[in-house]
Amino acid sequence: MAIVTLLTDSGESDHYVAAIKAKIISVNPGIRIEDISHKIGPSDIGHAAFVLRSVFRDFPKGTVHLVGVDACGNRGDVPIALQLEDHFFVGCDNGLFGLITEKSHQQLAELNTISPIQTTFPERDIFAPAAAKLASGMSITNLGRPMPAFKRMIDRQVKATKKQIVGTVVRVDETGNLITNIPKDVFDLLSANKGYTIQFGGEKFRKIQTHYNQSEQGECCIVFNSLGLLEIGIYKGNASQLLGLEYDSVVNITFDEP
Amino acid sequence: MAIVTLLTDSGESDHYVAAIKAKIISVNPGIRIEDISHKIGPSDIGHAAFVLRSVFRDFPKGTVHLVGVDACGNRGDVPIALQLEDHFFVGCDNGLFGLITEKSHQQLAELNTISPIQTTFPERDIFAPAAAKLASGMSITNLGRPMPAFKRMIDRQVKATKKQIVGTVVRVDETGNLITNIPKDVFDLLSANKGYTIQFGGEKFRKIQTHYNQSEQGECCIVFNSLGLLEIGIYKGNASQLLGLEYDSVVNITFDEP
Amino acid sequence: MAIVTLLTDSGESDHYVAAIKAKIISVNPGIRIEDISHKIGPSDIGHAAFVLRSVFRDFPKGTVHLVGVDACGNRGDVPIALQLEDHFFVGCDNGLFGLITEKSHQQLAELNTISPIQTTFPERDIFAPAAAKLASGMSITNLGRPMPAFKRMIDRQVKATKKQIVGTVVRVDETGNLITNIPKDVFDLLSANKGYTIQFGGEKFRKIQTHYNQSEQGECCIVFNSLGLLEIGIYKGNASQLLGLEYDSVVNITFDEP
Repeated sequence: MAIVTLLTDSGESDHYVAAIKAKIISVNPGIRIEDISHKIGPSDIGHAAFVLRSVFRDFPKGTVHLVGVDACGNRGDVPIALQLEDHFFVGCDNGLFGLITEKSHQQLAELNTISPIQTTFPERDIFAPAAAKLASGMSITNLGRPMPAFKRMIDRQVKATKKQIVGTVVRVDETGNLITNIPKDVFDLLSANKGYTIQFGGEKFRKIQTHYNQSEQGECCIVFNSLGLLEIGIYKGNASQLLGLEYDSVVNITFDEP
Repeated sequence: MAIVTLLTDSGESDHYVAAIKAKIISVNPGIRIEDISHKIGPSDIGHAAFVLRSVFRDFPKGTVHLVGVDACGNRGDVPIALQLEDHFFVGCDNGLFGLITEKSHQQLAELNTISPIQTTFPERDIFAPAAAKLASGMSITNLGRPMPAFKRMIDRQVKATKKQIVGTVVRVDETGNLITNIPKDVFDLLSANKGYTIQFGGEKFRKIQTHYNQSEQGECCIVFNSLGLLEIGIYKGNASQLLGLEYDSVVNITFDEP
Repeated sequence: MAIVTLLTDSGESDHYVAAIKAKIISVNPGIRIEDISHKIGPSDIGHAAFVLRSVFRDFPKGTVHLVGVDACGNRGDVPIALQLEDHFFVGCDNGLFGLITEKSHQQLAELNTISPIQTTFPERDIFAPAAAKLASGMSITNLGRPMPAFKRMIDRQVKATKKQIVGTVVRVDETGNLITNIPKDVFDLLSANKGYTIQFGGEKFRKIQTHYNQSEQGECCIVFNSLGLLEIGIYKGNASQLLGLEYDSVVNITFDEP
């Protein structure tokens, strides 16, 4: 099954996304195309990386993920194809792919090196044919010139000690839930059945729940979500608006003294 | 042909919808997935029920409809799969399914009863595998524990007498058209060729048209729409904004005295 | 490969788009349906025509394009199916199709002439079955009554002399880029290596670049885009907002005196 997913910042009221799909279908009409999102903020690499790393592993291994976010990159950024954790990715070497996994690449090539073209629309003219060929079984090594490494940026890290975990909101989802970068496994290791206080904005909480519907409507609800990350929501409400927190707001957990 | 439709309140800028699709494809890559909408208002059961009951019968019988709206429900609400009017539905027993038909269910089971899991993302972890299995031919009885009944809520009813029909706006569509719950068959029965006055806001009209383009631009146009429901529009304008009507606004039809 | 694309102004939070898809699938479940956009402005023929003419040729020849924008048209407008440049189109004869190509039609028929129906939802009830039948191999001549011509409206034209090209913004895309109707081939012919000044709003520029990423962040960038049209952007910014230009704003290029 040849699958290509699309993740772009192209929006949904222009011809761009359809042009990418048309190009893929023209190369191989048997490819299944699945949209991840076209509503990534313009050139918002952080948003795109969060969405992509949260979902790419749910697709079958061998899936090709075309990423048209900040597709032109900065001066000198080149189009690439790479294999990571048995998935294929095609996009611009603008630092995004370094944010989706800490694993090393399995294969990596610079695209547009064989009969290079000039284009202002690399998603359609470079990424789409490469993705379609990968999904059709061509190997990365036949798509372009091998590269030693792709760009990695340093993501905001969680600070964790025996006394405290300090994290930040890494995504405010469309319903206003605040997803932090505090992982359940770090919490489990450090809490060791100690009591704890979760703080953000002016609020303090003493309990992490297992389901949203354990709260009453309008109440704050804190869970470890399906990504294994601490998430703050308002049951049937918009947590970001009601709590005044946004992307990059600090959330910390302080463990009780024994 | 195995078809799964998706109707959620998950929006389009997060990983949620793609995660549901990826799970379905992983179970059975031959399934055709069709989006109904992911722009249902957060936990807006009324909106979701209106959209679903307006379209599910247009799909071939046997289609599976995955409904991820208010997916966690209230405390005690359980995930279910059911068969209604020869279509399959998977979602939360939060009252939504009772609003799409008055017919009884053909089959009904509580999900997550065989090796139950804990999850904050039931759309991906419970609904998607169940929908994929149903679409692949598994029967509801093999998916979970049989239940006697699912939740029904009472929807706002039309009041109809020989003198008057009193209805409400049940959906303001994206272009501002006001769809009421006044059915054409009730109107036809009661009007019996009598004259009538349609009233809403401060407006009075004496005529129902058959097509929108029988009005001039900016004029109010009243039709029985493709769902057989009275609909108020402004030809090439936004009726909700221009008339000041919204969800739940009253619309009534008074028949002339003989 | 039977492909039907959809381009509508129906939005994404109602049942309309799903109803169109369900009807197509019911006629022929083997048809591949691809969304172009459902976010065309209400009855905005200019927007729809721009998007459609920018992408339809990227799809394989023989693709059927269902256009549900201003689907009822004005009084007297009829539903049609036509073949243009080896692609098929189904929609309302409201002038839109005349804006996507200057070529003559290859085939043309009025729909809803064989057992005509009355409907307020022609996209589902007339366009969808016609599109599905075309995609399944039926010929236009079997779908309805032949017509001699479809409506053509006059689009805003570029004025080009040896001294100056005067164009307008024909589309502000979702990220704020300003796409004009000034074609590269006209510019190349008239510039003949002369210097030139590009003017819009209060701004003057002397250079057209080949890539967006040749500019610094926040700088104005002028390119001939992938459609061969002059486009004004702000690198990683919203040009429309920052420059105060919008749909129909004038952009002109004055060539230096020799």
